[in-house]
Amino acid sequence: MKNVALLGATGAMGQRFVDMLENHPYFDLRVLVASSHRRGKKYGKDVHWLLGNSVPDYVKDLEIMEFNVKTLEKENIDIVFSALPSEVAREYEGTLREKGYPVFSNSSAYRMEGDVPIVIPEVNREHIKLTKIQKEKYGGFIVTNSNCSTSGLVMALYPLKKFGIEEVIVTTYQAISGAGYPGVASLDICSNVIPYIKNEEEKIRRESRKILGTYENGKIKSYKMRIIASCARVPVRDGHLESVVVKLREDVSLEKIKESMENLKPLEGLPTAPKKPIIIRDEDNRPQPLLDACMGNGKSKGMSVVVGRFANIEGYLRFYLLVHNTIRGGAGNAILNAEYALKHGYVR
Amino acid sequence: MKNVALLGATGAMGQRFVDMLENHPYFDLRVLVASSHRRGKKYGKDVHWLLGNSVPDYVKDLEIMEFNVKTLEKENIDIVFSALPSEVAREYEGTLREKGYPVFSNSSAYRMEGDVPIVIPEVNREHIKLTKIQKEKYGGFIVTNSNCSTSGLVMALYPLKKFGIEEVIVTTYQAISGAGYPGVASLDICSNVIPYIKNEEEKIRRESRKILGTYENGKIKSYKMRIIASCARVPVRDGHLESVVVKLREDVSLEKIKESMENLKPLEGLPTAPKKPIIIRDEDNRPQPLLDACMGNGKSKGMSVVVGRFANIEGYLRFYLLVHNTIRGGAGNAILNAEYALKHGYVR
Amino acid sequence: MKNVALLGATGAMGQRFVDMLENHPYFDLRVLVASSHRRGKKYGKDVHWLLGNSVPDYVKDLEIMEFNVKTLEKENIDIVFSALPSEVAREYEGTLREKGYPVFSNSSAYRMEGDVPIVIPEVNREHIKLTKIQKEKYGGFIVTNSNCSTSGLVMALYPLKKFGIEEVIVTTYQAISGAGYPGVASLDICSNVIPYIKNEEEKIRRESRKILGTYENGKIKSYKMRIIASCARVPVRDGHLESVVVKLREDVSLEKIKESMENLKPLEGLPTAPKKPIIIRDEDNRPQPLLDACMGNGKSKGMSVVVGRFANIEGYLRFYLLVHNTIRGGAGNAILNAEYALKHGYVR
Amino acid sequence: MKNVALLGATGAMGQRFVDMLENHPYFDLRVLVASSHRRGKKYGKDVHWLLGNSVPDYVKDLEIMEFNVKTLEKENIDIVFSALPSEVAREYEGTLREKGYPVFSNSSAYRMEGDVPIVIPEVNREHIKLTKIQKEKYGGFIVTNSNCSTSGLVMALYPLKKFGIEEVIVTTYQAISGAGYPGVASLDICSNVIPYIKNEEEKIRRESRKILGTYENGKIKSYKMRIIASCARVPVRDGHLESVVVKLREDVSLEKIKESMENLKPLEGLPTAPKKPIIIRDEDNRPQPLLDACMGNGKSKGMSVVVGRFANIEGYLRFYLLVHNTIRGGAGNAILNAEYALKHGYVR
Repeated sequence: MKNVALLGATGAMGQRFVDMLENHPYFDLRVLVASSHRRGKKYGKDVHWLLGNSVPDYVKDLEIMEFNVKTLEKENIDIVFSALPSEVAREYEGTLREKGYPVFSNSSAYRMEGDVPIVIPEVNREHIKLTKIQKEKYGGFIVTNSNCSTSGLVMALYPLKKFGIEEVIVTTYQAISGAGYPGVASLDICSNVIPYIKNEEEKIRRESRKILGTYENGKIKSYKMRIIASCARVPVRDGHLESVVVKLREDVSLEKIKESMENLKPLEGLPTAPKKPIIIRDEDNRPQPLLDACMGNGKSKGMSVVVGRFANIEGYLRFYLLVHNTIRGGAGNAILNAEYALKHGYVR
Repeated sequence: MKNVALLGATGAMGQRFVDMLENHPYFDLRVLVASSHRRGKKYGKDVHWLLGNSVPDYVKDLEIMEFNVKTLEKENIDIVFSALPSEVAREYEGTLREKGYPVFSNSSAYRMEGDVPIVIPEVNREHIKLTKIQKEKYGGFIVTNSNCSTSGLVMALYPLKKFGIEEVIVTTYQAISGAGYPGVASLDICSNVIPYIKNEEEKIRRESRKILGTYENGKIKSYKMRIIASCARVPVRDGHLESVVVKLREDVSLEKIKESMENLKPLEGLPTAPKKPIIIRDEDNRPQPLLDACMGNGKSKGMSVVVGRFANIEGYLRFYLLVHNTIRGGAGNAILNAEYALKHGYVR
Repeated sequence: MKNVALLGATGAMGQRFVDMLENHPYFDLRVLVASSHRRGKKYGKDVHWLLGNSVPDYVKDLEIMEFNVKTLEKENIDIVFSALPSEVAREYEGTLREKGYPVFSNSSAYRMEGDVPIVIPEVNREHIKLTKIQKEKYGGFIVTNSNCSTSGLVMALYPLKKFGIEEVIVTTYQAISGAGYPGVASLDICSNVIPYIKNEEEKIRRESRKILGTYENGKIKSYKMRIIASCARVPVRDGHLESVVVKLREDVSLEKIKESMENLKPLEGLPTAPKKPIIIRDEDNRPQPLLDACMGNGKSKGMSVVVGRFANIEGYLRFYLLVHNTIRGGAGNAILNAEYALKHGYVR
Repeated sequence: MKNVALLGATGAMGQRFVDMLENHPYFDLRVLVASSHRRGKKYGKDVHWLLGNSVPDYVKDLEIMEFNVKTLEKENIDIVFSALPSEVAREYEGTLREKGYPVFSNSSAYRMEGDVPIVIPEVNREHIKLTKIQKEKYGGFIVTNSNCSTSGLVMALYPLKKFGIEEVIVTTYQAISGAGYPGVASLDICSNVIPYIKNEEEKIRRESRKILGTYENGKIKSYKMRIIASCARVPVRDGHLESVVVKLREDVSLEKIKESMENLKPLEGLPTAPKKPIIIRDEDNRPQPLLDACMGNGKSKGMSVVVGRFANIEGYLRFYLLVHNTIRGGAGNAILNAEYALKHGYVR
């Protein structure tokens, strides 16, 4: 068992970490860090809990701490998870790396740094080798998640890489939980769609090229493809839906496409790894956020990407995908990264 | 003043016709036709009114009739509007055409017939000349509306035709009112997105090519472009939002694109014609269904298409558009077609 | 293990039964009955599944049957659950009772019959003795659930009976799942409230008096109290919220009220029985459907009633309660009734 | 024409004032006051407009000012409308009264002061005489609106006063626009109900007694009745629905009740006064926020209270009412108060 700390523990994403780390076989969540005005308050009393259940018992009486490396040292923290907003993440995660900590972060602050990987382990686990370079430089390292929409997109694209991805046009229908709390005002989104999410389109473009890229001699070489993203917020609680139109270099049948996706190899023996990273639905009208965001059971619930509505149109491949934005697109992926890193000796 | 009848008067689209025809300067709505089980009931008592106001006084006491050509003759009906479901439309509209009536229809039944035009007057008013061919054949004629999503798309594409449209990838966020009443069950759409609308994607593809096509010697020659449509229903009441990615033959600046759209010529002197067929919004986060679906005033409220979020990405033009699905994408466009036909002598 | 059949297996309530009976330690669901047009189809293919997970594996390949006593006999069915609409329930449940079956029904068809109990086991388990009278008359028996809103109300009122309940004014905020599928049209309820649910107010009044009544010599003597119910539908998926204003004969402190509710005795040793039938929340703003409808774990998840916002105002007691309408107010309560009946020898 | 200023012009309620004052025959809105950080910005550019239309042209280019009495003097302001939050209202409205201004306020800051009236002109216009007492003391005066839920309740109760109101139990379903902007977070209210609105229940109790009270010798004598309020927020944009249970001293038929409500006298000749202050709906399922909040036309749209679902139960009268919370329950009522005050010489 490793002792872990969580930064940004009271926010919407932090709550998801807390929920997923309950009874985790590897990680013992011992330190909850949040804004200084919450310091000393009991988590169970102070947090505005947003998930449809209660604050888990194991953290109810933990006292919230403010960010302080000394505290982490005193509590013998081995691994740090970060659900910080980017503004703060830059400073805190950097400090922790300098102090020798492995940081698994959902924040965007370091994602595009040359020596920091964005890891989705079923897709690009070899990128985690960058942590060695970081360790040499700083003592510790940062492994990041991708942006929430990107995670689902990349998982669906990766099995198509072998056919040559020339161009991707992705249009999103994103859930409100992606904006954190308080996030989107109800007057703005109730019975409405907002066709704008700050920086999201640019993140999708940059990050997906990096994740699909190849690790060579301590560097990531981006994958070359044209990519156009159009992002909108819809009045849905959880689950980002994405329509994807892809131009492949090869001419491939839909059957082969589906087969490639279904055969995306699961990670063996990791608690949060889903048995089927990609689930194909053959119905006319799936995937749907309400029905498909939480596929799976136990610790890997919500970690699969659900794909459907395949069609070949005008020489393009078209499909819809659904990703749970705070699980695979957030806390769950960071935990899976840490599990993988631990099992393969990147963390000791 | 022309005497008009409305088929399908009690449905969601029928109600929109009733609402828009109140105090209309050209059309006197005298006959409301609905299913036979409603026959003889007063419209104001029997209709399940869905618009956020009351049943207009002028129709409250009209008795609902069942479909019957004799009734129309007795009431000296000059023009028929149809808000019928396609199954019934085929028969009834065909009968009326044979009896010499001009029918302005929102139904899809006849849209793809060679001698029936789909008219959006700001875009392809010359297609209405096909009515002459119909008149010769049948005595009367049918002029159709496009499918609701198609109407907005085509209005935004038309000003780009001069730059050469090679390829269009459109992804929709469609309102529940587009499915009629009872339409979508609340358990299916409340806090959800359904990425499927029956036949919609195919309709968008076929109809937009036809509308953008050219009238030549009594025939419509379809416009050649590749088009890929992906359609989903979102929990919004009114207004279809669409993300559009276009490949143009020419390299055009965004300024010129916007200018072309803004300069789309309005129809002069028709009550339902908006002064600005296309409204450009320069904000980051527009158009939005809730804020932009009902732009405009008086009779032309909701008849403009609102466009925003222009970008040049990877050699493509990208924008979002919004169209009021039951006004410009339905009743309003049919009324405008009738106004145009009347003013230009196609109806006497 | 008892062999059980489910009537009305494909509806919204039927699905809840299917979900709750998965891996049930007492009941083996072997026969799924639905409308005759579904006969022979595989449940997993034919059902329009509405819960946020997949059709459970154990029923996926079961063939749907139409109602037929012979089938039940051939399959050695011991117990029947009914999620039928009332119109059909009257006939089918009556037939089964005549054939000697114990029927646990969610339908309202027989609720107000003199010899049929409405049972919420934590409240009035002795009413189940009426089944003996039925057995003598018919061979089998029917035990009903209360109406969904009534179940929560009665559970919260029962601990107050000892203080003398003079008058109850209850106002509801009811979820759309209570109307079944397709149920409420999205155009009617999206961003709206409908202050009317057919027969609901009358059901609450009649049923709560019967359930709180006393069993004496083979009869139920209704509890005497004034009760006024006002019912509305709100755009929420699951969980009926109710504001309750009660006039008690005795003057009781809020502490004592809460204590009485918290002390409502759980049923021991039954899989679906919650450890805390009533959960008190002391926060300002609870209970809330989204957060509190699914309290609890495992088989008894959603079986507790959550109560909060206690106040003494103008000599009245006021509180809000929340009940999961398709679990405690439906399938869950019927299953609990069957568990109780089995354990106490009413079913063999 | 009077020159008017609006305090709190950019908030949700301020926007409603701006919308309703467009083309007002008496009032020329010339000064828009908001937080100092907005100073100098053009209203049309800076406001986050929330109503389903565009910022009206007449204010688009007005520069936002910060609060400053000198500015009002320079612009020759005759009347001030206030849509300020209570915290700020106390100071600013007090200052303006001292400087001799008549202030028509939607804020709660001064409502319960002995010499400040809460006026709903159809109900208690004689309370406006309190302004004379204020004028003597301070030079200017403040006339307040009631709380938004209270306004609808009191309008429906007033016609019942003659039968003797002993007790009122009111339960609300309140729209999100009542919480201002950003107000309620979408994650809190999307597919949920929140049974708590800070101070609302107490406001309803206090204010309704004051408004129904009588003016005697420069004082308001509160009306004596027991009143219990339970308030909840629902995912609806506009329109507060309320279930009301009333005990009257007299035994009155429903017909007489309805007649009394329908006969509530309108104010003659004021632009914002509705012809029917109370509209009775006889359908089973009305009033509904979506359909009934905006009854009426022109300037008085949304100023009527809509009442339905009358029943006599257990010796109580029960009905549901609907009030547009930002029109009759806000800006509209303040404007009507100002119109009345002007016409009757309280403002010169």
